[in-house]
Amino acid sequence: MTKNQFLTEIMEQPAAIGNIIAFYSGAEGMALLAKIKETIAQRAISRVIFTGMGSSFFISFAAANLFNQLGIHAMYINTSELLHYNLSLLDEPTLLVCSSQSGESYEIKEILEHLPATVFCAGIVNEEDSALAKKADVALLCKGGKEEMTSTKTYVVTSLAAYILGLYLTGKWNEAAIARLHALQRRFEDTLSGYEAWLDKGLNFLGDITTLQIIARGPAYSTASQSALMFKEATHIAATGILGGEFRHGPMEMVSQGFKSILFASEGKTLEQSLKMAEDITRFGGKVWLITNAKAALNRQSEHIVPVYIDEQDEFLFSIQSIIPVQLFIDAYAKRHGFEAGSFSRGAKVTMTE
Amino acid sequence: MTKNQFLTEIMEQPAAIGNIIAFYSGAEGMALLAKIKETIAQRAISRVIFTGMGSSFFISFAAANLFNQLGIHAMYINTSELLHYNLSLLDEPTLLVCSSQSGESYEIKEILEHLPATVFCAGIVNEEDSALAKKADVALLCKGGKEEMTSTKTYVVTSLAAYILGLYLTGKWNEAAIARLHALQRRFEDTLSGYEAWLDKGLNFLGDITTLQIIARGPAYSTASQSALMFKEATHIAATGILGGEFRHGPMEMVSQGFKSILFASEGKTLEQSLKMAEDITRFGGKVWLITNAKAALNRQSEHIVPVYIDEQDEFLFSIQSIIPVQLFIDAYAKRHGFEAGSFSRGAKVTMTE
Repeated sequence: MTKNQFLTEIMEQPAAIGNIIAFYSGAEGMALLAKIKETIAQRAISRVIFTGMGSSFFISFAAANLFNQLGIHAMYINTSELLHYNLSLLDEPTLLVCSSQSGESYEIKEILEHLPATVFCAGIVNEEDSALAKKADVALLCKGGKEEMTSTKTYVVTSLAAYILGLYLTGKWNEAAIARLHALQRRFEDTLSGYEAWLDKGLNFLGDITTLQIIARGPAYSTASQSALMFKEATHIAATGILGGEFRHGPMEMVSQGFKSILFASEGKTLEQSLKMAEDITRFGGKVWLITNAKAALNRQSEHIVPVYIDEQDEFLFSIQSIIPVQLFIDAYAKRHGFEAGSFSRGAKVTMTE
Repeated sequence: MTKNQFLTEIMEQPAAIGNIIAFYSGAEGMALLAKIKETIAQRAISRVIFTGMGSSFFISFAAANLFNQLGIHAMYINTSELLHYNLSLLDEPTLLVCSSQSGESYEIKEILEHLPATVFCAGIVNEEDSALAKKADVALLCKGGKEEMTSTKTYVVTSLAAYILGLYLTGKWNEAAIARLHALQRRFEDTLSGYEAWLDKGLNFLGDITTLQIIARGPAYSTASQSALMFKEATHIAATGILGGEFRHGPMEMVSQGFKSILFASEGKTLEQSLKMAEDITRFGGKVWLITNAKAALNRQSEHIVPVYIDEQDEFLFSIQSIIPVQLFIDAYAKRHGFEAGSFSRGAKVTMTE
């Protein structure tokens, strides 16, 4: 593989994971988490709203899902929509989790100017000198290091910051949880070095792509959305991230010969539905690149299904690790087509206007 | 225009609007609304969750937005995701608004089996003998009449049922509001009969379509999502509905010669941002079919922007009326390409499986 900036940042992900684990198992990170937990108790805050734009917004889907399963009421809303149309949501005691890797996105800076006293704002932010890092009541730092291209490292560490916060608030950020994240870090290394087994096969299977449906349920919907964004940003391919339930309720009509999809299927609450969808897509002649942690799904390989195995059983962490095949696919797809993925020409990495 | 079932149902929309106004300005409809308002007061319910699948889910975006602007805390979540991953959201006093035109969708029937006693369930439903109509605590009937094709009439009346509920709960469902809906009904008639002025021009402008980005902010995001679903279902074109803020945060990178979009730009809180986006898209060579109620936007017509004027100033009602150009476009596009839009071959109108 030819090394470029995009691939360099992809390969830096295990180190970034190591940094965030170290920070939140150390005194400084723990103090930030403790301050949030104490304030929630003091102010009798009973709900969390996740907000962000782009990659940082997508993380909210999985994070709210995790928090609700942990018993903390959580919802998500795009920051621009919160600001212009739904600001009254903030008029009761709320933990607002604002995510922004740069901490300088236009909408994030605007919302920081509009927070009523009922809101306690936790920023999840990678850039430590940014507006968000300075203005949030607590800034949960991501420790992802510098990122110049389409979000890769920061998608992973922002997701992990939300994960750590959820576990901490429910008394589950302990040695076992830290060990799970160290295992995730090792599996990231393994997946990033073991791509020969599946990458070329996936590229040959999907071939030249005009449009792509990227389908998931549960926390992996964050990953599907992020995958679609990367395809749009980095390859200019019209990809759509879509919930599995939504795909069945209509867009399934699109499937015929030539239809191409990536489908995330995780062990957990909806594996059966996801595998059934893969079969239904192939029944009408469509192709499915199946990213799964279900060993049983590996024997479903056929002319129309090619599976990639992700060795991570936790459904939330699966959603993070399963971004790797898509990242490497996009890098390799761009190279095959004679361009370099991941830089910005139409806007900028940091969106300074609305 | 050749009349077919899809176009027949499109043309039945003004009558459907007339029916729903009559029902909720009459005793029977008022009694249903009153029961919901009384229960909210009795049980001290302080929040609303909108849920649904497909078209009925998209309505939730605009409805929650409207409710939050009216001062009633509201959020939305796809029913399948609520059921499998976020059920704990329902463990405090909640008005759950379940929308389903058929009242028989798999996920809707499932969620009805999982409601704790903390939930008061209002169904917004078109089919009066359905599971949802029978099992909801109150069934808000849509009065849209029989619909066999891709959702058109039921999208409109389901949206209006949510609108009427929001106004009623805040003491604003009065003569003036009823008059606004009668005006909407007349404008539907006018738009449906006055398409010669813009339909062929739009078809020639967008030409053959492979992919399409459909962009909106605020309540019109429901309409963008519904538009994308209709394109997928009825023409098998890979369309994506996307928030304006999200489009600027990355997918803007896709824009170059050959890029095609539909952009909704409403007078109200985000007109300026939407018109700026239209300009930015054309700056990079993309095409924008601009659906707008802003008279000032009509003089922006250029080689790359073609505007369609919608005569409705209320931002929520604009989002409903502005579906008409897309409906008629899809019908006419299908005819130009030698097929008939709106029937189902890969699934069914009512989704009986997950």
